[in-house]
Amino acid sequence: MKILLELCYDGSSFCGYQVQPDKPTVQSALQDAIEKLYGVRYPVKGCSRTDSGVHALQYFATYDTDKILPVERIPSALNSVIDRHIAVRSARVVDDSFHVRHDVKMKEYEYLILTGDIPDPFMLGRIWHYPKKLRSDRLSLMKEASVAFIGRHDFSAFMSAGSDIADRVRDVKYLEITEDDGLIRIRIAADGFLYNMVRIIVGTLIEVASGRISPGDIAAILESRDRARAGMTAPPEGLYLRKVEFN
Amino acid sequence: MKILLELCYDGSSFCGYQVQPDKPTVQSALQDAIEKLYGVRYPVKGCSRTDSGVHALQYFATYDTDKILPVERIPSALNSVIDRHIAVRSARVVDDSFHVRHDVKMKEYEYLILTGDIPDPFMLGRIWHYPKKLRSDRLSLMKEASVAFIGRHDFSAFMSAGSDIADRVRDVKYLEITEDDGLIRIRIAADGFLYNMVRIIVGTLIEVASGRISPGDIAAILESRDRARAGMTAPPEGLYLRKVEFN
Repeated sequence: MKILLELCYDGSSFCGYQVQPDKPTVQSALQDAIEKLYGVRYPVKGCSRTDSGVHALQYFATYDTDKILPVERIPSALNSVIDRHIAVRSARVVDDSFHVRHDVKMKEYEYLILTGDIPDPFMLGRIWHYPKKLRSDRLSLMKEASVAFIGRHDFSAFMSAGSDIADRVRDVKYLEITEDDGLIRIRIAADGFLYNMVRIIVGTLIEVASGRISPGDIAAILESRDRARAGMTAPPEGLYLRKVEFN
Repeated sequence: MKILLELCYDGSSFCGYQVQPDKPTVQSALQDAIEKLYGVRYPVKGCSRTDSGVHALQYFATYDTDKILPVERIPSALNSVIDRHIAVRSARVVDDSFHVRHDVKMKEYEYLILTGDIPDPFMLGRIWHYPKKLRSDRLSLMKEASVAFIGRHDFSAFMSAGSDIADRVRDVKYLEITEDDGLIRIRIAADGFLYNMVRIIVGTLIEVASGRISPGDIAAILESRDRARAGMTAPPEGLYLRKVEFN
């Protein structure tokens, strides 16, 4: 029987999703909690490999078990033993053929940037504090630039080294930028993302705002497939996996 | 010259406002930062003695200095050296006769309670997680009970032992309870508060919701001045000093 868990987690106390020796990770915390519940250490599969410090407002993970436990009791049973930076929001039985990573149709990420010279202690480790005020014309430039990312493109220029993935074409469904009282919220959805793709897009948009890159350059940067031409990689702490849709 | 600072802080990493030997406190963190800026350790006075784990969305503190520093530069100068769980939002020069505690006319506290069986990892240490769903009729009972607190009363029944304060009459201006998707927000304003007064009022309101105390009992509990008749003391982590007004 395959169980699908819906989770959320504050990534600031984890070294990413994936198990690493002697480091706290979301996957090992999940496996610890499941072991406490079932008495067996089942391997857990996650929908995405979030990096160290990256958060998830919605995340899915599966495990296989032959022990019968009423599925509606799983969330509270796991929440009572799991690392408190993770919460299990729901659980259900899925078909054995379901694959929590391969069956992802669309993911949406959110990136939060606090602009201005006053930090927010309540968002420590959960936001990128950019210590300058952005005038509204700068925000307009970011919005203008964002349009160039939408659609099917080879995103090689927006991928960090260290990934050997061959197919770098991704389909960006939307990229929305909103601002409220100095807090910039960037939401981007695609059929998949390359390594650090959201963080490099965000870093590039901030360089558009600061004038180092012009909105008209984005198409040529994409075309070049050259990482060196895109902007900086924004820090992990502002990034949230926000929505995951399956086939 | 007396400088008035407006601050906010996440209280979860402090043992309250007031200096204690070998413990991290808001007051010592402020004095550390001011010492780094001026090269002199000025004593700092705060508007309220918040307890360990209690937060402040708005807080005021003063210090006296004879060194001239452009007042508009003080916030960013202090923010660059202060413990990152505190932010200085503004600074201004006030009259030497101003007293940041005695001149408080009104304080508003907010208390957050998350109800239901799913915790929120992003609110860890910043909310009271009450692990039951509260039906709307239970919330109505809380609202009914809240009315009895408004106005001038002797709040001895809603004060923890350990305070030798003689005048226990306080004037509660308003007490508002709202609920959104399981998150209960209680806002209470008064000319002053006794030791743990907000937390005991909140604990009592939760006992009204759970049926152990009836809304009609509140007036008699106040009248009795007997701490044993009021409800439990709600935990500190859900409490925020939210607004401070001066004469």
